[in-house]
Amino acid sequence: MSLLDTTLAAIKPVSEEALAAAERRQNELTKPPGSLGHLETVGNRLAAIAGVCPPPVPEPAVIGLFAGDHGVCAQGVSPWPQEVTVQMMLNIGAGGAAINVLGRQAGADVWVTNVGVAADAPDHPAVRDRNVRRGTADFTEGPAMTLEEARAAVEVGIATAFEAVDGGARCLLTGEMGIGNTTPSSALISVFTGTDAATVTGRGAGADDEMLDRKVDAIERGLALHQPDPADALGTVAAVGGLEQAAIAGFILGAAARRVPVVLDGVIACSAACVAVAFDDDVRGYLISGHAGAEPGIQAAVAHLGLRPLVDLGLRLGEGSGAAVALPMVQASARILNDMATFASAGVSEG
Amino acid sequence: MSLLDTTLAAIKPVSEEALAAAERRQNELTKPPGSLGHLETVGNRLAAIAGVCPPPVPEPAVIGLFAGDHGVCAQGVSPWPQEVTVQMMLNIGAGGAAINVLGRQAGADVWVTNVGVAADAPDHPAVRDRNVRRGTADFTEGPAMTLEEARAAVEVGIATAFEAVDGGARCLLTGEMGIGNTTPSSALISVFTGTDAATVTGRGAGADDEMLDRKVDAIERGLALHQPDPADALGTVAAVGGLEQAAIAGFILGAAARRVPVVLDGVIACSAACVAVAFDDDVRGYLISGHAGAEPGIQAAVAHLGLRPLVDLGLRLGEGSGAAVALPMVQASARILNDMATFASAGVSEG
Repeated sequence: MSLLDTTLAAIKPVSEEALAAAERRQNELTKPPGSLGHLETVGNRLAAIAGVCPPPVPEPAVIGLFAGDHGVCAQGVSPWPQEVTVQMMLNIGAGGAAINVLGRQAGADVWVTNVGVAADAPDHPAVRDRNVRRGTADFTEGPAMTLEEARAAVEVGIATAFEAVDGGARCLLTGEMGIGNTTPSSALISVFTGTDAATVTGRGAGADDEMLDRKVDAIERGLALHQPDPADALGTVAAVGGLEQAAIAGFILGAAARRVPVVLDGVIACSAACVAVAFDDDVRGYLISGHAGAEPGIQAAVAHLGLRPLVDLGLRLGEGSGAAVALPMVQASARILNDMATFASAGVSEG
Repeated sequence: MSLLDTTLAAIKPVSEEALAAAERRQNELTKPPGSLGHLETVGNRLAAIAGVCPPPVPEPAVIGLFAGDHGVCAQGVSPWPQEVTVQMMLNIGAGGAAINVLGRQAGADVWVTNVGVAADAPDHPAVRDRNVRRGTADFTEGPAMTLEEARAAVEVGIATAFEAVDGGARCLLTGEMGIGNTTPSSALISVFTGTDAATVTGRGAGADDEMLDRKVDAIERGLALHQPDPADALGTVAAVGGLEQAAIAGFILGAAARRVPVVLDGVIACSAACVAVAFDDDVRGYLISGHAGAEPGIQAAVAHLGLRPLVDLGLRLGEGSGAAVALPMVQASARILNDMATFASAGVSEG
């Protein structure tokens, strides 16, 4: 069996028993019932993922950041030149990008992987070279990649997750870099959520009205050409997805297989989570949504995935920024279940 | 001059020059302009507060938590018995409450001050005894406290802020504990924002429909009795406020006088910030809103104060929880301005 197949076979549902135990424990802690809001639901989910209440605090954390390029940029869907993908990948490798700063603040390591960058990338000690293909093809003209390439990219993500967890990570965060990558993400979200392209397509990193129209048009033409089947995860990501979306989907599958929570960033991560859930519905229970973000595709995706984002700071950067800012809250939600006194232990009267 | 008077005299507007420099710098950093959303506006505000760009990272941080009781509890405005105030103050002192857990996660110390608890409080090494009065009077029958008591409570807050900053703190967070304290908070917000009581009054720590009606009715009777003048900060907090609201207002004034940012929690903090701004409008520039929260008074207050909350996790706990969860984001916003590469330094093409 392939790494993808063995990984899918290893994914089990989260624990309903530990979830119920966490829900009970929340009401014994010295606070009005439900008063910690979404921190309680996230803490309960961590218990379900770990299969024990209280759950371990999810640390240390690794941000798995995957970089790729997109043939659909030929349709004029991004205001940024494609060379920025490799430039920013190297900037991230050098520690100068927003995700490096946010990762340091949150205490999370950033692992940068070249899974699909088009340009020649100089060797860099902080960039992992797992290039599967030098950027996708333009999906308005043919499949973005072959099924074999899609599987290889998914397996890059799985292997990265396994390496991180084997190295001690107990929380994985998704990150990405790829000029033009909101376009295939919106295409994927359109397929998996059954929402029309115009509803789930946004301005990405700065599209104006005309460019937004071109994005929607390119997605509509791609979907008409390929008619992707939402039950076919690999075929859909190969047809209209991207190499980093495939790798993130694999990273999520790897997290679920190892029963480690995975915190999603914005629209690219959400589209990859839709791919992962199409591979195996049990993956849902391992997902935590970090950030709502400005991209309209996020709303459709989180509704499809049954998630509620932790924060909404109006970020539209990607890279994993929305997952990194949410990480301290995820860890806090576990600490609440571990460290708070109960009404009985503290001698506090109940309401 | 009193401590209050000298503090008010020391408060200066934040720096427009540093604000403009920060806004310029955001656009030089390797990210699409504006793509870090509210993290950019908070970082810019930190520069304005510090008077320098990039601003120092606001750490270490101290959560100034003030506990008090409320005579208006006699009107049946809380489902919790008043003894819970002292019990929870001691639980916080012992490190077992939610704010202790969230403070540890965020790396912030919790300073607990008894400024107005009604019950006998045993000496506790972690609780600062600055009790001004054993709980307020019922403001539906007379002023909550005298002007002298209100001034003393404000000065407890100022002195606490000064002690924290003198001890090295570079970020202050507001916290509180007091059964029934959403009722005086809604009263204060009603006065300072000119919004009717029913609009700004919520369920606090668990009021049902009938109790909510009683809260609104008590506030309306209190406001009719005292006719507070929103231009009279001290008179208003004495008439319908609380001892912890007065102390937090002072804590905010102390932060502004020392040019240190102050992160607000929920509705009690927002009401105290309205008091502080009524003392001196220049205080506005030093405020950062941590959490939106479930209480409707927060919306009216943050609109009045010109703030946008960093997170909305549906918290309705108080204690400072919404400020503590926001703290890592506040610190991240400063690190962005300090640590990110520029397009020029990283050799990244601009869009």
